[in-house]
Amino acid sequence: MSFDTIWTNARLATMAPGQPGLGIVENGCIAAKDGRIAFVGAATDLPVGADAATRIDCDGRWITPGLVDCHTHLIYGGNRATEFAMRLEGASYEDISRAGGGIASSMKATRAASEAQLVASGLKRLDHLLAEGVTTIEIKSGYGLDRDTEIRCLTAARQLGRARDVSVVTSFLGAHAMPPEANGDKDAYIDTVIAEMLPAIAELKLADAVDAFCEGIAFSPEQTARVFDAAKKLGLPVKLHADQLSNLHGAKLAAEHNALSADHLEHTDEDGVVALTKAGTVAVVLPGAYYTLRETQAPPIALFRKHGTHLALATDSNPGTSPLTSLLLTMNMGATLFRMTVDECLLGVTREGARALGKLKDVGTMEAGKACDLVIWDIEHPAELVYRVGFNPLHARVWHGRTSATSN
Amino acid sequence: MSFDTIWTNARLATMAPGQPGLGIVENGCIAAKDGRIAFVGAATDLPVGADAATRIDCDGRWITPGLVDCHTHLIYGGNRATEFAMRLEGASYEDISRAGGGIASSMKATRAASEAQLVASGLKRLDHLLAEGVTTIEIKSGYGLDRDTEIRCLTAARQLGRARDVSVVTSFLGAHAMPPEANGDKDAYIDTVIAEMLPAIAELKLADAVDAFCEGIAFSPEQTARVFDAAKKLGLPVKLHADQLSNLHGAKLAAEHNALSADHLEHTDEDGVVALTKAGTVAVVLPGAYYTLRETQAPPIALFRKHGTHLALATDSNPGTSPLTSLLLTMNMGATLFRMTVDECLLGVTREGARALGKLKDVGTMEAGKACDLVIWDIEHPAELVYRVGFNPLHARVWHGRTSATSN
Ligand SMILES: [Zn+2]
Ligand SMILES: [Zn+2]
Repeated sequence: MSFDTIWTNARLATMAPGQPGLGIVENGCIAAKDGRIAFVGAATDLPVGADAATRIDCDGRWITPGLVDCHTHLIYGGNRATEFAMRLEGASYEDISRAGGGIASSMKATRAASEAQLVASGLKRLDHLLAEGVTTIEIKSGYGLDRDTEIRCLTAARQLGRARDVSVVTSFLGAHAMPPEANGDKDAYIDTVIAEMLPAIAELKLADAVDAFCEGIAFSPEQTARVFDAAKKLGLPVKLHADQLSNLHGAKLAAEHNALSADHLEHTDEDGVVALTKAGTVAVVLPGAYYTLRETQAPPIALFRKHGTHLALATDSNPGTSPLTSLLLTMNMGATLFRMTVDECLLGVTREGARALGKLKDVGTMEAGKACDLVIWDIEHPAELVYRVGFNPLHARVWHGRTSATSN
Repeated sequence: MSFDTIWTNARLATMAPGQPGLGIVENGCIAAKDGRIAFVGAATDLPVGADAATRIDCDGRWITPGLVDCHTHLIYGGNRATEFAMRLEGASYEDISRAGGGIASSMKATRAASEAQLVASGLKRLDHLLAEGVTTIEIKSGYGLDRDTEIRCLTAARQLGRARDVSVVTSFLGAHAMPPEANGDKDAYIDTVIAEMLPAIAELKLADAVDAFCEGIAFSPEQTARVFDAAKKLGLPVKLHADQLSNLHGAKLAAEHNALSADHLEHTDEDGVVALTKAGTVAVVLPGAYYTLRETQAPPIALFRKHGTHLALATDSNPGTSPLTSLLLTMNMGATLFRMTVDECLLGVTREGARALGKLKDVGTMEAGKACDLVIWDIEHPAELVYRVGFNPLHARVWHGRTSATSN
């Protein structure tokens, strides 16, 4: 039995399904071969004679799966610090949006940015997430809102995955907002999304999924359904920004289309929760946006618990409503603002985040056969990862069996 | 004119008083000599023939004064991650406090910790703050609650200042909570604070100020006044945890004793605000505790504005109610949760933080003669420091003229 690396003397939170809580193994051990987990379990169960080129003594530290940030808008031009200052003077998100600010201002800056500029600004944000143990990240387009810029954004997202030790999963979010040249004709813009953007992006294999923003200030359920149908014809899975500011029954719509996830969900009712659960669609909650927008209605966590809905947590990192690049802080916000338990938070950024991306077979838990994506933490209990605010106890980050520098 | 270091090609937010807003100087320049600022201003005003051993081109980056965290409880044993999990199951801060948890559990762990252990755990938290540009930090005792442990905590705090490039200012907070051996006799415990702890600590010169916690669950205004009188006799300035959970008129009490600062202030009324303003006592707001405790009454920011009260912001870093070690995030919370403006936040962690410590003559702004404590930031506008959530754009940190590694 010859492995590449064995990590010994560790406490494991495997997140494996079918186990209580976090799937904890005291005095645990992990062995990697060719970038994948070849053994994970109690040290006493490691096969006799197991050998490895590298043995790493973890000194009793905790190991979790690499973290998964399953909802980000990491690629965009400019930033919205000035708009943030405006909000402090009383303007609402919808005011700013109607005044041509909001997403439109990021669109302008994104269209003006070259691919290299988009990669460079995205890398700064990505490096923050990686320094906290993220090993898989979803990145959406949606600030280009024309074919060429959407393609450039998704290309930049793929570039981030080549520039760093991280798995990037992309989503095409053409149906994010209205570009000014569409003159307010939402149906015509959705035609463009379906007829021009989506086929080109599918052909270039730039999107792993298709997303939309279903909301009064964005697109209707009918327009959303048209995008989903077009995605399905191209064999692409779908997901949805649903029920964030009002209840348009987006959760139910997502479930009807077998979406991978429905995200936000502050205003989802019990019918919507039941529909998600039956469809196996993951509920992704995004406390960074709730916090930034000072919302008062939290997503229905108690209903998710009651029905056993899969529940994930993500940063929603974006320039307008969640300029957040810390998945550890996101967990603290999930607990503090949404009253999620410590276990729900930790599972939400590992196993359930992976499930929300359709990648649970490959990442999200520590099980033999999966990618060897790990984080080794300087903590005495996993609850510390949720309890602390603005603190990073990362000791080492491992992607595909390889320990990375915390900032490349 | 020979300087040690000249920083050129920078944009300065000097925070100098008597100037509008942040005291901005475009195309600015700073020169240091013997650890102090010898020149700061427009590059065109730098004396002709100015020379320096080291010239640093800032490439148009922004420079602010080194950040001041003027209220922390950085030194303690253990942590309260388990209690955090309890709160998620519904227990209130007061429930936990009455059940012998809360501060009492940190007291137990602190008493059990050696000075070296207190230094080691404090350093981890300190390094996070330094990595974000803190150059001056206040550290309180208050988890020992007996003479020897309070002395050990303050000694550990002083050690942190020797171990890193940072100025440490200490406060003795014996009147923080009741130790179990006092059997609920608050007056008798205050006698011990005054007769046993305070004189020993003053003699060892371990405290730069004396603090107390005036609250129903802690000490009464009368008990607080006794501590303040004793401090004054020893020549030590005072400050107060005031009006956090209820209005005991702590702000007024602090003002009457010419306190350096009154901190928290969620329940302070206009009389209290007027008293603080007249006394020149700085109002220090602590959004990390407000956030963690899910309080709904924010401090009276509008009244501070109306009366022109000096307003500072700090982390309140502590194991129970604010396990926060990010002053950048604290600014974002000040803006998001308390609706402080960008300028109020930035001044609150520089000039006003320094004023709250009685150190404004030495730090807190970039003015000739002050310590050369600077932060150079990778940003395009100072508002970005407040707008982002969980992101650190620090390029370099300078303490007493010397550039430090971000983590030592
Ligand atoms: Zn989003
Ligand atoms: Zn405090």
